[in-house]
Amino acid sequence: MRVLVLGATGGLGSALAHLLREHTLFLSGRRSLPLRELAEALGGTPLPGDLTDAIEAKALLEEAGPLDLLLHAVGVAGRAPVRETSRELLEGMLSAHLLTAHHALRYARLQQGGRAVFFGAYPTYVRVPGFAAYAAAKGALEAYLEAARKELRREGVHLILVRLPAVATGLWAPLGGPPKGALPPEEAARKVLEGVLAEPPPEVLEV
Amino acid sequence: MRVLVLGATGGLGSALAHLLREHTLFLSGRRSLPLRELAEALGGTPLPGDLTDAIEAKALLEEAGPLDLLLHAVGVAGRAPVRETSRELLEGMLSAHLLTAHHALRYARLQQGGRAVFFGAYPTYVRVPGFAAYAAAKGALEAYLEAARKELRREGVHLILVRLPAVATGLWAPLGGPPKGALPPEEAARKVLEGVLAEPPPEVLEV
Repeated sequence: MRVLVLGATGGLGSALAHLLREHTLFLSGRRSLPLRELAEALGGTPLPGDLTDAIEAKALLEEAGPLDLLLHAVGVAGRAPVRETSRELLEGMLSAHLLTAHHALRYARLQQGGRAVFFGAYPTYVRVPGFAAYAAAKGALEAYLEAARKELRREGVHLILVRLPAVATGLWAPLGGPPKGALPPEEAARKVLEGVLAEPPPEVLEV
Repeated sequence: MRVLVLGATGGLGSALAHLLREHTLFLSGRRSLPLRELAEALGGTPLPGDLTDAIEAKALLEEAGPLDLLLHAVGVAGRAPVRETSRELLEGMLSAHLLTAHHALRYARLQQGGRAVFFGAYPTYVRVPGFAAYAAAKGALEAYLEAARKELRREGVHLILVRLPAVATGLWAPLGGPPKGALPPEEAARKVLEGVLAEPPPEVLEV
């Protein structure tokens, strides 16, 4: 398989990349030094770039070429009450989750039968006080994917939405660390791949 | 009641404003001439401004003062396949629906027991091919409100999400006109007010 992991230097992306090292692997992330090190360790091709930028996104997805599997392990977390949520926080959250996903989908060349995987969130976990911006970003992504899935299906491409419980990654650093009981990223990655590679491909995978 | 209608020069906002003319009425919209004419006809106060701009939003909500009812009848529609959806279209859709709602909520002074009303969408109607950006904006708004509701409840403020079927307004102009069977705006407005002013206030009103 030709596989592209977006957000490969993050906790979940890196764990996914390690499990996919036997495939033709393309790895993308914004931090180019750790990305190059990871790509070297796994025998993959590093494609550094900022996915919120349409031109960079287009270039890196064209360089990756035709794909069987695309994993969008990109995002940020943040907490603020509504009254203290700035425009920058709200728009930054939407860029990180929705705009990067849109650019990936818009410019990816997914093969017939290919799968593109994105990470949503359980509504009851994120639609809570202090998380309005994060909830909005995940709600936007899930709604976007549901509409996009029906378009991409016509090209024989499968969009898969994965909902994970909390995973113990650096995503939680701005919030003071992961919550108790968070899944180790290796375990989360194993469950994700097992689910998204199943036949027939699921539309929504709840781990 | 002290009432503020945002998007008052739109089809739905204008119909809502007409039904609320017996109250102390503040009307906001971006087009200042039709706004002034409407305010004059209804004996209300015009508060022109662009709600995507934090400074303008703050100023106009402060000028409106303490509110018993805020109606956010703001939004745009647009259609494009995912592959042809530009960053501008996606971000413009999110600004029009989510950012304006956030600014309204962030800067409004809602009285104890006050109600703030926003318009979502039935997922099955909007999560369809060609509507990924619109679906994302409505999905973001609904998720945001669910989190924000739990914060605002502590201040004794009720957030109400209304889902309407298609309403025959100018919103549909970019799409070639409203779909068959769209509700006349006067009828939609009557149903909205009847529902959102009920006791106890609903969290979600499906018309």
